[in-house]
Amino acid sequence: MLQFIELIAVLVIAIASAIEARRRNMDLIGAYVIAFIVALGGGTLRDMLLNRHPLYWIENPSFASLIFAVALISSIMMRIYPQLPQERFVIVMDAIALGLFSASGTEHALTLNLAPFIAIVMGVITATFGGVLRDILFNQVPTIFMQHTQLYATCAFMGGLAYWWARPDHPDVALATLASIVVAAGLRLLAMRFDWRLPF
Amino acid sequence: MLQFIELIAVLVIAIASAIEARRRNMDLIGAYVIAFIVALGGGTLRDMLLNRHPLYWIENPSFASLIFAVALISSIMMRIYPQLPQERFVIVMDAIALGLFSASGTEHALTLNLAPFIAIVMGVITATFGGVLRDILFNQVPTIFMQHTQLYATCAFMGGLAYWWARPDHPDVALATLASIVVAAGLRLLAMRFDWRLPF
Amino acid sequence: MLQFIELIAVLVIAIASAIEARRRNMDLIGAYVIAFIVALGGGTLRDMLLNRHPLYWIENPSFASLIFAVALISSIMMRIYPQLPQERFVIVMDAIALGLFSASGTEHALTLNLAPFIAIVMGVITATFGGVLRDILFNQVPTIFMQHTQLYATCAFMGGLAYWWARPDHPDVALATLASIVVAAGLRLLAMRFDWRLPF
Repeated sequence: MLQFIELIAVLVIAIASAIEARRRNMDLIGAYVIAFIVALGGGTLRDMLLNRHPLYWIENPSFASLIFAVALISSIMMRIYPQLPQERFVIVMDAIALGLFSASGTEHALTLNLAPFIAIVMGVITATFGGVLRDILFNQVPTIFMQHTQLYATCAFMGGLAYWWARPDHPDVALATLASIVVAAGLRLLAMRFDWRLPF
Repeated sequence: MLQFIELIAVLVIAIASAIEARRRNMDLIGAYVIAFIVALGGGTLRDMLLNRHPLYWIENPSFASLIFAVALISSIMMRIYPQLPQERFVIVMDAIALGLFSASGTEHALTLNLAPFIAIVMGVITATFGGVLRDILFNQVPTIFMQHTQLYATCAFMGGLAYWWARPDHPDVALATLASIVVAAGLRLLAMRFDWRLPF
Repeated sequence: MLQFIELIAVLVIAIASAIEARRRNMDLIGAYVIAFIVALGGGTLRDMLLNRHPLYWIENPSFASLIFAVALISSIMMRIYPQLPQERFVIVMDAIALGLFSASGTEHALTLNLAPFIAIVMGVITATFGGVLRDILFNQVPTIFMQHTQLYATCAFMGGLAYWWARPDHPDVALATLASIVVAAGLRLLAMRFDWRLPF
């Protein structure tokens, strides 16, 4: 069930990123690289920092082909049907992915017996650095670092914290992951609704 | 013979990159870093993704000194003789390097028994990500992702595909590498001549 | 003693970077990431290039929490007391850190029996790439590559050279490190005072 949600979330984010790349006059290659990096860049950076090899998209090559198909179909669809995809659906999926990725990143680091703070930071990197790398490639200051941005990395941090707190009681990671999703996605959607930002 | 062509291609690209860096008001350090990254950045990223260590320029330190000499000489030459180097020669060498690097990147990944699609993607990363990193340091959106750009990453992909297709029949990699160069460089030069771009 | 100076230098640089991030309208998350990357990014890149794991801030998680505290306190302080910190003190500490980081990066590479030129380049990467990554996140061309910049990477290189030259006679690294600091910081402060730049 969680894996199914993760797959849907990754696909939705990849589609939204590919469309965003096309809007900025990138071609199919650009859309593919952007979709790939937003979907898999955070986890790749985490694994390289933690020296976990082989990288999951190298071991499971279907991810790379799947995202290529997504970029291709998004590019063709945009020509035929140039309206936005369901904005609200993308926002909810992105919020869910924030909690999911934060949980999986935290889990990977805890498995290596790292300190909780570092483990949660790894969760935050997993959940947010794909977007940071995308913004670098779009030649702009990463949005999530700016004052005008509603809570984002903070939600991932809270999700990771919830995961770490819920984990010992639930050796099956599914419940702890659910806790992370509820906390991170809940906080994120509330922050967007009520324009919550960091006070400093 | 192939190694000789590779060396010439790397040197020509390093010279052209160092001159480009100087044109953008960088000093010798900037020219060195840009020349280094364009020449060796793609292969370095590939090796870090594949966890192949030591990196080749760490094991063979002469590359780093050679590129420093190139950056230094290019910088001095530009003062004495500020015209462009032979534009056409640079373009042909860059096209040849596209095929060569794509072949070598694909080969490294196939040696590790990776899936063909991932192997060819590794070839494309080897051939193109030096330029992507250069564009990030030049503070611009990577050219190869833009719609107005003539086929580039696509040529590297086709070169890698040709390599993968030709490889089983030619255990000596020279012939498969030649196939990659002919396909990638041929397609690249045709794309530049006839302004071929991705249709979407 | 050296470790104490290093800690002070890292803290001062982290504070200055966090304040700079706040000036550019980043929030606490942005200030934290910038402070973290400026303080630890160069060494992290060096260790990933050299395949040295676990990374030191993963093994010693107190660094990550300490820099978070620094970013938090700097952010709060800036509200209450918006003047600059002692500009001159920051400049001197940054110059000292240039020599210290260059020495430690060179030492790590020499321990692995790398060629001296590569070892000193690793020292320069350690000392300067935090700032390069910061400039990429600030969406500007890295300052240290520009012609208008007073000697910076060059000072780190000279510091690394001094370290390499002094090392065999002083198995205790403290004296060689001191040589690196004197050379790098001295050259840097002179370059700033007399506006020394690379001639090309």
